[in-house]
Amino acid sequence: MIIAVDAVGGDHYPKNPVIGALEATKEDPKLQVMLVGPEKLIQDELNNTDYDKNRVHILHAPEIIGMEESPATAVKSKRSSSITIGISAHKQGECSAFVSTGNTGALLAASTFILGKLEGVLRPTIAATYPTIKGLSLLVDAGANLELKPEMYLQFAKMGSIFSEEIFGIDNPTVGFLNVGEEPDKGTELHKEAFKLLSKMPNFLGNIEGKDILFGKTDIFLTDGFTGNLILKFGESIPDVLKFLLSKTMKEDGVEPDLQKLIFQIIGKSLHTFDYERVGGVPFLGVNGTSLVGHGGSTPAAIKNMILNAAQCVDHKVNSKIVASLNK
Amino acid sequence: MIIAVDAVGGDHYPKNPVIGALEATKEDPKLQVMLVGPEKLIQDELNNTDYDKNRVHILHAPEIIGMEESPATAVKSKRSSSITIGISAHKQGECSAFVSTGNTGALLAASTFILGKLEGVLRPTIAATYPTIKGLSLLVDAGANLELKPEMYLQFAKMGSIFSEEIFGIDNPTVGFLNVGEEPDKGTELHKEAFKLLSKMPNFLGNIEGKDILFGKTDIFLTDGFTGNLILKFGESIPDVLKFLLSKTMKEDGVEPDLQKLIFQIIGKSLHTFDYERVGGVPFLGVNGTSLVGHGGSTPAAIKNMILNAAQCVDHKVNSKIVASLNK
Repeated sequence: MIIAVDAVGGDHYPKNPVIGALEATKEDPKLQVMLVGPEKLIQDELNNTDYDKNRVHILHAPEIIGMEESPATAVKSKRSSSITIGISAHKQGECSAFVSTGNTGALLAASTFILGKLEGVLRPTIAATYPTIKGLSLLVDAGANLELKPEMYLQFAKMGSIFSEEIFGIDNPTVGFLNVGEEPDKGTELHKEAFKLLSKMPNFLGNIEGKDILFGKTDIFLTDGFTGNLILKFGESIPDVLKFLLSKTMKEDGVEPDLQKLIFQIIGKSLHTFDYERVGGVPFLGVNGTSLVGHGGSTPAAIKNMILNAAQCVDHKVNSKIVASLNK
Repeated sequence: MIIAVDAVGGDHYPKNPVIGALEATKEDPKLQVMLVGPEKLIQDELNNTDYDKNRVHILHAPEIIGMEESPATAVKSKRSSSITIGISAHKQGECSAFVSTGNTGALLAASTFILGKLEGVLRPTIAATYPTIKGLSLLVDAGANLELKPEMYLQFAKMGSIFSEEIFGIDNPTVGFLNVGEEPDKGTELHKEAFKLLSKMPNFLGNIEGKDILFGKTDIFLTDGFTGNLILKFGESIPDVLKFLLSKTMKEDGVEPDLQKLIFQIIGKSLHTFDYERVGGVPFLGVNGTSLVGHGGSTPAAIKNMILNAAQCVDHKVNSKIVASLNK
């Protein structure tokens, strides 16, 4: 299986994507990777390493879409970007999946436009892994669709369930619908309509509240992309906020440096679950192909995990299962 | 000035409201309190204390609205509840304000229905204090209005600014609009429309993101009641989640009990800002009167602070300033 990797996405390219890709080939002997981006840049990086030419390929793409560029404009104007060329190669069957730590909006736009939607899908969605005290839950939608129709909530819940089951290995993952209270009549008319549709899913646990998120009450947190994006970024800020408050308190109290160090070690370990860099990428669910996006700050290990996740999506036939689930 | 206090609201009545009210009279010698609820229950509680009969009054109200009762039904069916009788007394001018730690929805419904709206107000809103590393910000709307029109965002921003200025003493409090990105064109059409209106406010700082909340980027976090409620309850869960994760890590690592105790003390102090019980109540902004609600678990100190906040709202003529601001 060949997985295409955006070599010029994120904050640390080409180094992190290239190293992550090589590590993935070491972990899975059946895997090949196709590094997409400016050829010379990639080759120079590869020359620093000991790589297997039979399993590591380069697909030349001269243009780079920046992290802050407007997605729609960038995809339209940069036809030779790593994102466009990589996803087009996937569309042509030259690789089984495309992964990137680049501009999420551009990736979503290119994936939707070039790969198209799976049969029966109203809208593709972004799922994000979400740290809880029980491990990782899946937040859907994490920012792709700000306004939803009731049927879309149901589709997102189904697609998220399949991903959670196949990639996280959770049997019958539970779905919780983020709302202002637990009762079925909570929320707006839209939420009440969606609740009715969701109630037909056997793994739907009902409405959940803001206080249930970090406690990991369900395996899937279902919400619109507006709320999802806010909750996602809010959660990512927690470790830094805590470290700031702790430093301040310990400084004020004159805590001994050795003890400070020990306390930070314990805090660091406690918050390990919140370290988003250890998580691989997340998929665009509903596109007719396998396209994953990772955090811009991803480490090589995170990129390796994203590549392995992509391979698993293909191996487990996630897309066929989504089509079967939505159209039955 | 007489402040009416719901003696049978929250999780610890009549004790906490009664003690909180007596403490408020001790802190402010000009203040009188009117305890609203079943007369015998209140008198029994008062008999345990040394109170000043000239400054502590009882207003008999035989019925109690429970915390979990449906607000609309409860207000309609229980005409002799402490909430209805207390707010009616305020409407009649028998007291300058009403405060409660009871059922928020019932309080909002009774306040809006009995007191009515201030001139020019489209909808009353609930503001909530929100802990950040810089101190307390104000979250508006905290759950009263799930769906807003652009003009309502502007009114909520104005009302929140006046409260923040008069009660928190912040000069020109900054307003941030919760959104999925900082650029003016982020969010739905509704958000873009609201952004345009908000841009005319001199203290509008623009869009803010989920990651900006705990860092206290602005003095006011403006959002709809759906998102606001989720963000509020999410934030309240953080201290418990941390304590859980820390306990687990320290147990796994076999940290000595004395050191565990010390670490919890430091964490407790660091998270002091997140302790919602230390905060007094929050107002229903936009109603034609002064009505504040506090957390159900409020300590006597929190209730005392809520009573003093209510007196301050009256002293500072918050409502007149709101009317002037909205109608200029």
